[in-house]
Amino acid sequence: MDILTALMSTLLDQLQKPTLSFLLGGMVLAAIGSKFEIPDPVYKFIIVLLLLKVGLSGGIAMREADLAALAVPAFCAALAGILIVLLGTRTLARWRGVRPVDGMATAGLFGAVSASTLAAGMTMLDAEGIAYEGFIGALYPFMDIAALVTAILLARVAAVRRAPAASGNGSGTATLSLGSGDGDAPARLEPGLMRGILTDTLRSPAISALLLGIVLGLFARPETVYHDFYKPLFHGLLSILMLIMGMEAWARLSELRKVAHAYVLYGLTAPLVHGCLGFALGLAAHHLTGFSAGGVVLLSVMAASSSDISGPPTLRGALPEANPSAYVGASTGLGTPVAILSIPLFIALAERLIGF
Amino acid sequence: MDILTALMSTLLDQLQKPTLSFLLGGMVLAAIGSKFEIPDPVYKFIIVLLLLKVGLSGGIAMREADLAALAVPAFCAALAGILIVLLGTRTLARWRGVRPVDGMATAGLFGAVSASTLAAGMTMLDAEGIAYEGFIGALYPFMDIAALVTAILLARVAAVRRAPAASGNGSGTATLSLGSGDGDAPARLEPGLMRGILTDTLRSPAISALLLGIVLGLFARPETVYHDFYKPLFHGLLSILMLIMGMEAWARLSELRKVAHAYVLYGLTAPLVHGCLGFALGLAAHHLTGFSAGGVVLLSVMAASSSDISGPPTLRGALPEANPSAYVGASTGLGTPVAILSIPLFIALAERLIGF
Amino acid sequence: MDILTALMSTLLDQLQKPTLSFLLGGMVLAAIGSKFEIPDPVYKFIIVLLLLKVGLSGGIAMREADLAALAVPAFCAALAGILIVLLGTRTLARWRGVRPVDGMATAGLFGAVSASTLAAGMTMLDAEGIAYEGFIGALYPFMDIAALVTAILLARVAAVRRAPAASGNGSGTATLSLGSGDGDAPARLEPGLMRGILTDTLRSPAISALLLGIVLGLFARPETVYHDFYKPLFHGLLSILMLIMGMEAWARLSELRKVAHAYVLYGLTAPLVHGCLGFALGLAAHHLTGFSAGGVVLLSVMAASSSDISGPPTLRGALPEANPSAYVGASTGLGTPVAILSIPLFIALAERLIGF
Repeated sequence: MDILTALMSTLLDQLQKPTLSFLLGGMVLAAIGSKFEIPDPVYKFIIVLLLLKVGLSGGIAMREADLAALAVPAFCAALAGILIVLLGTRTLARWRGVRPVDGMATAGLFGAVSASTLAAGMTMLDAEGIAYEGFIGALYPFMDIAALVTAILLARVAAVRRAPAASGNGSGTATLSLGSGDGDAPARLEPGLMRGILTDTLRSPAISALLLGIVLGLFARPETVYHDFYKPLFHGLLSILMLIMGMEAWARLSELRKVAHAYVLYGLTAPLVHGCLGFALGLAAHHLTGFSAGGVVLLSVMAASSSDISGPPTLRGALPEANPSAYVGASTGLGTPVAILSIPLFIALAERLIGF
Repeated sequence: MDILTALMSTLLDQLQKPTLSFLLGGMVLAAIGSKFEIPDPVYKFIIVLLLLKVGLSGGIAMREADLAALAVPAFCAALAGILIVLLGTRTLARWRGVRPVDGMATAGLFGAVSASTLAAGMTMLDAEGIAYEGFIGALYPFMDIAALVTAILLARVAAVRRAPAASGNGSGTATLSLGSGDGDAPARLEPGLMRGILTDTLRSPAISALLLGIVLGLFARPETVYHDFYKPLFHGLLSILMLIMGMEAWARLSELRKVAHAYVLYGLTAPLVHGCLGFALGLAAHHLTGFSAGGVVLLSVMAASSSDISGPPTLRGALPEANPSAYVGASTGLGTPVAILSIPLFIALAERLIGF
Repeated sequence: MDILTALMSTLLDQLQKPTLSFLLGGMVLAAIGSKFEIPDPVYKFIIVLLLLKVGLSGGIAMREADLAALAVPAFCAALAGILIVLLGTRTLARWRGVRPVDGMATAGLFGAVSASTLAAGMTMLDAEGIAYEGFIGALYPFMDIAALVTAILLARVAAVRRAPAASGNGSGTATLSLGSGDGDAPARLEPGLMRGILTDTLRSPAISALLLGIVLGLFARPETVYHDFYKPLFHGLLSILMLIMGMEAWARLSELRKVAHAYVLYGLTAPLVHGCLGFALGLAAHHLTGFSAGGVVLLSVMAASSSDISGPPTLRGALPEANPSAYVGASTGLGTPVAILSIPLFIALAERLIGF
C-alpha cells in the first residue's frame, strides 16, 4: 500500500514534468478539436535538431571517455539494450491484438535510457557515499542507441515480411525475395534484403541525423555549438514535439482499447526484469574487469529506465507508423516511475551480492 | 509644451525599442519593394511559441499567487479589461470609416497590459517608497487575457452578424440563424450561435495555444522549459513577428488615410480614461479588501497601458483580417508613451484620495 | 617543411571547428545517399536570421564607434574589400574552366573578413604588447559588406551580360538593352540596366535582411534582442546551414574536378597578396591620420582573412547558383589557415616599415 502511494506520487511528479505534461496538453487539444498545429516543415526540423543533439552528446561523451576502461562495460550496455528489445519483441510485440510495430517501438523505448532516472540513481549513490566510475555517463549512448536501432531495424524487417509489396522505402529489391513471408512463421530474410533494410535505415533522416551527430561529436570539436545551441534548445523543442505526439496519441488512443492491459502489465514489470538483466551483465563486467559495485547499480538503473528524451524523437522520425499512445504512454507513464522506485532494490542487491 | 517635449522623447525611446523599430523596419522593407519574406510555416510556428510563452507565464504567475488574497483584485483586473474593450467597441469601433474589426482589435490591445509600462510604474513607486502587494504581477494575465478574448469574441460576433454567409471558421450552424443581421441594428444572437463562436474561438490555433500555456503553467511544472526556452526566445521571435506585421502594415496603411485622426484621438485620450477606470475599480477593492494604495496605482497603470507583447501575436493569430497599421500603430506608437507619462497622475490621485 | 607541418595542423584545427566539420558532415550525408533534409521554409528562415545578425552586429559596431576617427580607416577597409573582389574577378574568375559566378563568389569570401582570424591577430598583438585602436572591430563590417556586395553585384552583372534573355530577377528592362553582350568582350552596361541590377540586389531577400540589420543596428537600440536572441542562435544556425551547403557541395563537387588546381593556387596565394594590399592601404592611413602600426597589422589581417561566418549565408542567399564546393572549400579550407599563419609576417612587416 505504501509502495502504491509512492508509485502514485512519483507518477504525479512525472505528469507535471514538461515531457508528460506537454504530451497530455496535446491530448487535451486534440480532445477539444483544436485547430492548433505545428507546420510540417518545422516539425521535421525539430526532429533533426533533437536527434543531432542526442547524437552530439553521445559522441562527445564517448570521445571524452577512456576507451580502454570503457570497452567491457560499454559492450555490456549495448548488449543490455539489444537483449531488452529482443525480449520485448518476443513478449509484448507478440501479444494478441498488440500491433507488432507498436510493441517493438515500446520495447525500443524501454531499452533506451532515461537520463533523469540515471541522474536519480547517481544522486542516491552519492547520498550513501557509494563510489562509481566517472565514465558511467558515456555508457548511456551505447545502450540507448543499440536499443533504438535494434527496435527500428526489427520493425522494418517485420514490415517487409508482412507487407512485401509495400516496402515503402524504395528498396526495390525487397519486393522480389519475400513472396511467402507471413507473420508467425517468418521466411528467412535473404542477406541482400537485410542489407537493403540496413541501408534504408542508415539513410533515413532520423538515423542519419543521429549518426551524424555521433560522428561529429567523436571526431570534430562541436562543444561550443553544442553548449550554445543544441543543448539549450533541446528541452523546449522536445516539449513542442510532445504536443504533436500528444495530439496524435489522442487520435489513436482508441486503437489501444483492447490491449491496454498488455501495456500496463509490460510497463509495470519490464523495468524490474530489465534492471535484473542489467545487473547480471554488470556483475559479469565486475568479475571480468573490476567494474565497481556502484557501476553495476547504475547499469541496472539504465537498463530498468526507459527513454523520455532520445527515444520519442527517434522513433517518431524513423517509425512514423508506430502509435505514440502506446510507446510514450507505457514508458513515460509507467516505466519511468517504476524504474525510479526500483533503484533502492538494485542498491540492496549490489550490497548483498558484491558489497560496497 | 514641456509635456509635449516629454511625450516626443518617450515616443523616440519607444521607436528605438526592438518592438517598434522592427515594425518600422518591416514597413521600410515593404516600401522599397523588398522580396524579403518569412516563410508561412515558420510564421505560424512563431505565433505558437509566442502565445505558449504568454500563456505559460500567466499560468505560472497565477499558480504562485495566494489565490484568496488575489481574488477580488483579480476580478477587478479582469473587469477592467472587459470594460475597456466594451468602451472601445462603442466608441472607436463605431467611428465613421473605422473598420469595426480594426477598432475592436485596437480596443483589445488597449485593454491588454504592457509589462514594461507596469514595470515603469513599479519603479516609480519603489523610488518614492510606496508599498504594494507582491501579487501584483499575477493580476496582469487576468486583465490581459480578459481584454484580448473579449475583443476577439466581439469581433467574431460582429463578423458573423455582418457577413452571415461567410462565417469562415467552419461552424456550419452559424450561417443558418442569422439572415437578417446588419451592422447598426444587430439581430439578437441565438444561444446556439454564440456557443458556436465561443467553440470556434476556443479551437482557433491562437487561443488554443494561449489557453494551453495557461493550463500547463497552472497545473504542471513547466518552469525549467519556460526559463530555458520559451522566455529567452520570446523577444527575438517577437522582433521577427514585428517585421512581418510591419510589412503588412505598410501594405495596408492607405486604408487608414481617412480615419487616422480617429486613431490619434483614441491613442491620446484612451490611456487616461482607462487609467481612471482602473483607479475606480482599484478604489473599490481598497474599500472591500484593504487593497493597498500602491496596488490601486498599479491597477490604474495596467488599465492605462496597452499591450506591446502579448497582444500583437494574439490578435494577429486570431484576427488575421484586422489591420496591424491600426492597432499596433495606435497602441505602441501613442498609447504606451501616454500611459507612461500619466503614471505620476495616478500616484497623485492615490495620494489625494487614499493617502500612502 | 616546418611551415607545411604548421599549415597541416592549423588545417586540422579548422576541420574540427563547427563550420567546416558540419560542412564535411553534410558532404558525408550526401555521399551515403541519406534522405536527411532541412525543409526549405526553415532553410530560408535560417538565412534571414543569420543575415539579420550579421547586419545588426555591424550596425551596432558602427554606431558605437567614433565616426570621425573611423572615417579614413573605414574608407581604406571598404576599398580593400572592393579591390580584392576586383582582383579575383580579373584572375580566378577568368581562369579557363572556372565558372565566373563561382570565381566571383570565392573572391567575395576572400574579400570578406573572418572574425576569428581577426581575433587571432588581436591576441598575438596583445601578447607582444603592441597597441591598436579600440575601433578596429568597427572596421570589419566596412570591408566585409563592401566585398560581399561588390561580388554579388558583379556576378549579377555578368549573369545579365552572359544570358540577357534569362535575367531571372524580374527586372524586365534588363533584357532589352543587351542583345550583343558576350563573355570576353562585354558590352557596356546602360545606366538604366545597372540601376535595375542595383535595385534587384537591394530588394533580394539576402541583401534586404543584411541592410535591414545594419540600419536597425545603427538607428535603433536592438542590443537586448541582439544579445538574447540573434547572437546566441548564430553559430548553431550556421552549423545547420553548413550541413545544407555540404550536401549541395558534394553533389556539385564533380564540377570542380578540372579546375581544382585553380582554387588551390588561389587559396594558397590570395591571402598573402590581399594582406599586402591591406598593409599598403593601412600604411596610407598611417601617414594620413596617424593610424597606429598595430592597426595597420590588423587591417592586413582582415584583408588576408576570408569569411567563414557572414559570407556563406550571404552568398548562398544572394547567389544560389554559385557552387559552395568552390567558395567555401577554397576560403575555409585553405584561405583561413594560410591567413592565420601569415599574421607574424604582417607583424614583422609593420615592425620594419613603421616600428612599434
